[in-house]
Amino acid sequence: MYNSDLRGKPRKRDTYWSTDMTVKATTMLSEADGYDLLRQFNVPAPAFEIVQTPDDAAKAATKIGYPVVMKIVSPQIIHKSDAGGVIVGIKTDAEAKEAFNKIVTSAKAYDASAEIKGVIVEEMAKSGLELIIGGKIDPAFGRVLTFGLGGTLVEFYKDVGIRLLPCDDEDIRSLIHQIKAYTLIRGYRGQAPLDEEFLFQTLKNACDFFEKNVNVVEFDINPLRLYEKGGCAVDARVIVQDEPVELPAHYDPAKIVPLDYYKPRSVAVIGASDDPTKMGYAVFRNILQFPGKVYPVNNKRDEIQGVKCYPTLSDIPGHVDMVVITVPAQLVPAIMSECGLKGVKMAVVITAGFKEMDEDGRALETRMVEIAKNYGIRIVGPNCLGLILPPFKLDTTYVSTSPLPGDIAFISQSGAIVNAVVGISLSEGSEMGYSEVVSVGNQCDLDFLDYMSYAARDPHTKSIILYVEEIKNGVAFMEMAKEITQTKPIVAIKAGSSKRGQAAAASHTGSLSGSFDVYMEAFRKCGVVPVKTLPGAFQVAKALGDLKKPLTGRRAVVITNAGGFAVLSNDYAETWGIEIIDLPKHIIDELNTFLPPFWNKNNPIDLLGDATEARFRGVFDVLCKNEDLWDMAILVNFPNKVLAPDRVAQILIDNSKRTDNLLVGTFVGGDCLKPGVDLLKKNNILVFEELEFTYRALGHLSWTADR
Amino acid sequence: MYNSDLRGKPRKRDTYWSTDMTVKATTMLSEADGYDLLRQFNVPAPAFEIVQTPDDAAKAATKIGYPVVMKIVSPQIIHKSDAGGVIVGIKTDAEAKEAFNKIVTSAKAYDASAEIKGVIVEEMAKSGLELIIGGKIDPAFGRVLTFGLGGTLVEFYKDVGIRLLPCDDEDIRSLIHQIKAYTLIRGYRGQAPLDEEFLFQTLKNACDFFEKNVNVVEFDINPLRLYEKGGCAVDARVIVQDEPVELPAHYDPAKIVPLDYYKPRSVAVIGASDDPTKMGYAVFRNILQFPGKVYPVNNKRDEIQGVKCYPTLSDIPGHVDMVVITVPAQLVPAIMSECGLKGVKMAVVITAGFKEMDEDGRALETRMVEIAKNYGIRIVGPNCLGLILPPFKLDTTYVSTSPLPGDIAFISQSGAIVNAVVGISLSEGSEMGYSEVVSVGNQCDLDFLDYMSYAARDPHTKSIILYVEEIKNGVAFMEMAKEITQTKPIVAIKAGSSKRGQAAAASHTGSLSGSFDVYMEAFRKCGVVPVKTLPGAFQVAKALGDLKKPLTGRRAVVITNAGGFAVLSNDYAETWGIEIIDLPKHIIDELNTFLPPFWNKNNPIDLLGDATEARFRGVFDVLCKNEDLWDMAILVNFPNKVLAPDRVAQILIDNSKRTDNLLVGTFVGGDCLKPGVDLLKKNNILVFEELEFTYRALGHLSWTADR
Repeated sequence: MYNSDLRGKPRKRDTYWSTDMTVKATTMLSEADGYDLLRQFNVPAPAFEIVQTPDDAAKAATKIGYPVVMKIVSPQIIHKSDAGGVIVGIKTDAEAKEAFNKIVTSAKAYDASAEIKGVIVEEMAKSGLELIIGGKIDPAFGRVLTFGLGGTLVEFYKDVGIRLLPCDDEDIRSLIHQIKAYTLIRGYRGQAPLDEEFLFQTLKNACDFFEKNVNVVEFDINPLRLYEKGGCAVDARVIVQDEPVELPAHYDPAKIVPLDYYKPRSVAVIGASDDPTKMGYAVFRNILQFPGKVYPVNNKRDEIQGVKCYPTLSDIPGHVDMVVITVPAQLVPAIMSECGLKGVKMAVVITAGFKEMDEDGRALETRMVEIAKNYGIRIVGPNCLGLILPPFKLDTTYVSTSPLPGDIAFISQSGAIVNAVVGISLSEGSEMGYSEVVSVGNQCDLDFLDYMSYAARDPHTKSIILYVEEIKNGVAFMEMAKEITQTKPIVAIKAGSSKRGQAAAASHTGSLSGSFDVYMEAFRKCGVVPVKTLPGAFQVAKALGDLKKPLTGRRAVVITNAGGFAVLSNDYAETWGIEIIDLPKHIIDELNTFLPPFWNKNNPIDLLGDATEARFRGVFDVLCKNEDLWDMAILVNFPNKVLAPDRVAQILIDNSKRTDNLLVGTFVGGDCLKPGVDLLKKNNILVFEELEFTYRALGHLSWTADR
Repeated sequence: MYNSDLRGKPRKRDTYWSTDMTVKATTMLSEADGYDLLRQFNVPAPAFEIVQTPDDAAKAATKIGYPVVMKIVSPQIIHKSDAGGVIVGIKTDAEAKEAFNKIVTSAKAYDASAEIKGVIVEEMAKSGLELIIGGKIDPAFGRVLTFGLGGTLVEFYKDVGIRLLPCDDEDIRSLIHQIKAYTLIRGYRGQAPLDEEFLFQTLKNACDFFEKNVNVVEFDINPLRLYEKGGCAVDARVIVQDEPVELPAHYDPAKIVPLDYYKPRSVAVIGASDDPTKMGYAVFRNILQFPGKVYPVNNKRDEIQGVKCYPTLSDIPGHVDMVVITVPAQLVPAIMSECGLKGVKMAVVITAGFKEMDEDGRALETRMVEIAKNYGIRIVGPNCLGLILPPFKLDTTYVSTSPLPGDIAFISQSGAIVNAVVGISLSEGSEMGYSEVVSVGNQCDLDFLDYMSYAARDPHTKSIILYVEEIKNGVAFMEMAKEITQTKPIVAIKAGSSKRGQAAAASHTGSLSGSFDVYMEAFRKCGVVPVKTLPGAFQVAKALGDLKKPLTGRRAVVITNAGGFAVLSNDYAETWGIEIIDLPKHIIDELNTFLPPFWNKNNPIDLLGDATEARFRGVFDVLCKNEDLWDMAILVNFPNKVLAPDRVAQILIDNSKRTDNLLVGTFVGGDCLKPGVDLLKKNNILVFEELEFTYRALGHLSWTADR
C-alpha cells in the first residue's frame, strides 16, 4: 500500500485559509461614550449633552450655543437617520423643544421596542474639509490606521492611505502627504492652508488611543472636519470587545530550523514507485540525483528504479535524515511515528488530503504535527510539491526536470506556479537558476518565514522571490523581512488584489476585505518589493541582486538616438513612477558645447538617428561629472547603421566604472542588437529589450526609494 | 553632388508640429451675457439683474428673492473674488445696499483704472451636487464636450469624461454613466436620486448651444448644481471670437492616391552610392530586390553596385514611375521639376532638412510641394525612412535588412521605431511579416490617411498598426478609420500621454493640453484599438485579424488546472477590464454531475492539478451548450505529468469548431509546453505564454465591446 496514484484522485487546494482567530462578542459604543473616549486622548469631539426632556434640550442647546444638532440615543437604533432620529440646524429654544418631541416620536414609530436612553444635543460644527480617520485589526498584521478624504466621497474616490501600527512621526506625515486631497490641506488655489499640524497631532492621538485601548477592535471618525485653525470630529463609531484584542505574534528566533536540517546525508522516499503514472515514481527519479544515500520504501517491491527497496522505514539499515512522503494521508501519522523512532529530522509531506480537504483531514494534520513535534521532526507541507535545493542536487518534488542551480530562492504558495517557473527556467535563452525552490503547501510547521530564513542564511542565494496568497503571521513576517532586506532583496507577487479575489477570500476568512492594501503597506514598511507578474518578479529580483547600491531616488536621465522612444519614455516613466528630470541650465550649456545645435535641449536627451559614439560618450562624461543630480541613466538604442550595438554597450560598460549610479541599457530591435545585449549581460549591466518593461522594472526597483 | 552623407550631418526630427491654426482675438463674455446666451438654449442659469445704485440692488434682490449673491461687473476684473468683488448670502435690503457699496469700493481699490459696469445681483442657488459641463475646440478633432464632477474637486480627482461633437443621445447617456460620481446621481446609500433626465437634457442643450454658436471657442459651466428636481448653473465662462471657429476638414476621397501609384514599373534612386557609409548606398542596395526596372542616379559614377548609373534623371532612357531621393534638401526642388518632366508619379523624399529644421527648410518644403502639385507628383516624406511594400519586394528605405511579406501594415511617425520593429520581425522565433511599412516623415503630401487607405484597399493587409505622435486632420482620420474598421482592425499607439510629453507638445502647439484624452475618445468612436506598447500592438493586431467574430462583450470563463493562476486571473482580469462571470446555478449543477465533489464551484473553474482530459472536455461541453452566457473562454495550463500540452491544445481546437465565441489558450511554463503552443498557432487559435499578457491583450481586444 506504500504508493500513491497520481491520476484520478483529485487533490484539493487550500487556497484561502480560514483564519484561526476566534470570533469575540463586540459592542458599538454610543456616540457619547465614543466622544468621551476620544477626548481622553485629545482627539477633538463636539460639545454635547444627553437630555431627557424638551426643556432640558433647550437648556443644553443654549449652553452649547446655537445652532445645534440633535440625535436619538438608543442602542437598538444604529441607523439614526433612517429612524428620523437626527435633526440638524436647530437655531432656537422653541426649535430645540420641538425637535426633542419629533425625534422621540419618530424613533418610537420606527422601533417600538427600542430602549430610548435620551436625546443627544450636540454642537454643530461649521463646515470644513471632511476627512476620515479609522482603525481596524488585521488578523495577520495587527492594528491598521486609515486616513483620507471623508464624507460621502470616501467610498468611491478612495483617496485614502494606511499605516500599520506602531508608526512614527515620519509615517504619519507621509500618510498626510500621500492623499490627493492634501492639495486642499496645503491651500488650494490661493485659499488659506488648513491646520496640518492639528491634523498631524490628531492622527498621532488617534494612534495612541487605538494602541492604549486594547479592547477597541475598530473605530471611525468620519468626518473629521478640518479648518484653518483646528478641527472637529462630527461623528464617531467605536467598536469594542470584552477581552483585549489578540494581536499577531512576534517573530520567534527559537522556532527557526537549523541549516543542517536542509542538508541531509540520506533521504528515503516513502511510496517510491516503478510505475511512471505514480507520483512516487517521479519523486524517486528526481531524488536519484542526490549525491548522498537514497532509499526507496515500498512494501511491494525489492527494487525501485534499480535501487534496493525496503518494505518499511524501520527496515533501512543506516540512519535517515530526511523522508519524502507520497502515500495517502491516513497512513501519514503512523509513518511520522516511525520517522521519530528512526531519528528523521525533516519530513517533506507531498501527500494531500489534510486540512485543505475536510474536518477529517484537519484532524489527521493535527495528529501528524503533534507526533512530529514530540520527536522534534520538522515538516515541509503537507499538500505541496516539495522542496528543491539545486546547489545540493536535492529535489524532493515530482517536477519533470529539476531546475539548474543559481542564486534565486523561489518560495511559492502554488505548486502549479513552481512547475511553471521551473519549466521557464529550463527553456532556451533562459539564464535562470535557483538556490531554493519550495512549494509551501499547508505550512503545518515550516512556513514562509522558515524558507525565507533559509534563503537569508544560504550563501548561494542573492535574491528571494515570493508568490503569496496569504501570510498568517504578518507581524513576524515583517520583522524577519525587514532584517533580510538589509542584505538580500525580497520580491513578492501578492495574489488576490481584485475585488472578486478578495470577495472569495472574505467568504472564507470573515473580515479580510481590503487586505491587499495592508499587504502593500506591510511590504513597503519592511522593504519587500511588490510586483504583479512572474516575468517581472524574475527580472526585478535579478536586477536588485546585481545592484551596486540600492536606489534611493527615482530621478532618471534618458539618452537616446530614437526620437519615438524618447516620446514613449515620457509616457512609460510617468506610468511607472520614474521621474525624468529637467536638465539644469549648466548641464544644457555644457552639452551645447559639443552636441549639434538643434539637439532637443531636453530630457530625454535625443541625440538624433545619426548619433555618433562621440555624442553618446560626451553626454555620459557630463553626467558622470554631475552624478548627484540623477539616480539612473537609461540609454535607449535601436538598429541603425551609424553605431553598432556592441559599441553602444561598451559606452555603458566604460561609464559604469565611473559612477555607482544605476546605468541601464534598452536595446529595442531584436536579434541584430544581440551583440550589445550579450555584452551588457556579461558585464552585469542591467539591460532590457522592451521599452515599457524598462520603466516598469525601474519603477519596481526604486519602489523602496521613498522609505 | 548627387549623394548624401549618412554620418556627421545630424537630422532634426519634427516630433511636435506647430499647428497651422491662426490665432484669433477672443473675448470672454460677461457673466450676464454668458447666462443670457446659455438660457437661449435652455441651459439653466440663475435669475439676475445688473444694477447701478444701492437702492436698485435692494429692489432687484427683492424681486429675485433673498438670499442673493452680488458681484462686480467689470471687463478688467477677471478674478472677482481677489478684488473683493463677490459677496454671498445677502439676506435683507439693508445688506444688499451695504454690499453694493462695499463691492464698488473694493473694486476701485483693487484696480482704479477698471471700468465698472455695475453690480450683478444674482439668485443664490441652493447647494446640490456640483458638476461641470465644458466645451473646447481641439485643433485636430473639433468641438469637444467635457462633463464630470465639478467644483473644487474637479482638478484633482479628474472624474470627467469627454465626447466629440456631433454626438447622439446614446453618447450623452454613456457619458453621464461613465463618471464615478454617477453613483451620487443615481442615488447613493438610500438617498433620493438626482434629476438625471434634466442633466441629460442640459447636456444636449449645451451641445446644441456649442454647435449653433459658431463663434464660441470655449465655455465652462462650473458648477452646474444638480438637484432631485432640476438644477442650476452657478457660474459660466463663455469665450468667443469675432469670426466663426474654423473646424478641421472632412475626409476628401478625391485626395486619395490611386493604388497604381504604389505599383511602379520602374524606380530610380537619386543619390545612389557605392560608399557603404552613405544613405544612398543602403537605399539602392534595398531597391535592388525590386523585380521591376531600377536606376541609380549619380553624376560621379558610371556604375553603382553593378548597375549602370545615370548622371541625371533625364538621362534615363525609359520611363520612371517612382523616385527615391536621398540628396541634400536644397537640391530637391530642382529634382522635383525634373521628375515632373520625366512623368514620375511618386517621389519618396528621404532627405531631411525641411520644415522640421528651420524657416529656410520650411520654404524649401513649400516650394517642393508646389512643384510636385503642378506635375501631379505625390510625395512620401520628406524627412522619413521611406516606404516598404514587402509583397512587391519594394523597399525604398535604408533599413539593414528588408522585412518579410505578411499581413500587417505598420504606419509610423518615428523612423527609429520602424527600424526596431523590422529588426524584431526578422528575429528568431518571430512569425511577423508586413504588407506595408512606412515612416510618414513630415507628411507634406501623403499622410496617415493615405497610408491607411492603401492598407484598406490592399488585399494582403489583414490588420493595421499606427504609431502616432500627432494627427492633424483628426476629423477626416475618424471618418476614414470608421470605414476601415468595419472590415480591418486598426491598432494604435498614441505617444504623448504623459504630463511631461503633453507639456512638451503644448509648448509647441499652443493649446494642445489634455489632447491625449481626445485621441482616446476619437479612437473609441471610430473603432481604433489603443495600445501602449509595441509587443502589445503586434499581438493585438494579429489576434484581431484572426478573430472569427468581433468581441461584443467582456464576459469570460476561465478553466484551469493551476490554482495559483486561477487567483492571479482574477487580479489581472480586473486590471484589464475582463469580467470573470459568476456561473449560474444550472451550470454549476451540470458541472457537479461529473467533476470531483470538491471542485471550487466558481469561476475561474479550478479543475485541480490532477485534472484529466475528460474533466476539461466535460467543462467545454457545458460551455458550448451555453455559449450565450460568455464571450471568451480562457484555458490556463502549466507543465504537469497528467496531461500533455498537445492534448490540452487539441481540446481547444476541437471546441473551436463548436462555437464562434473566442477561445484562448495560455500555456505558462516555457519550452516544455511548446508542442501545445505550436499546435494552437497552426490552427489559428489565440495563445499566450504569459498570464498577465493574456488579460492585457483581451482587454484591448474587447475594447470596442462597449461601443
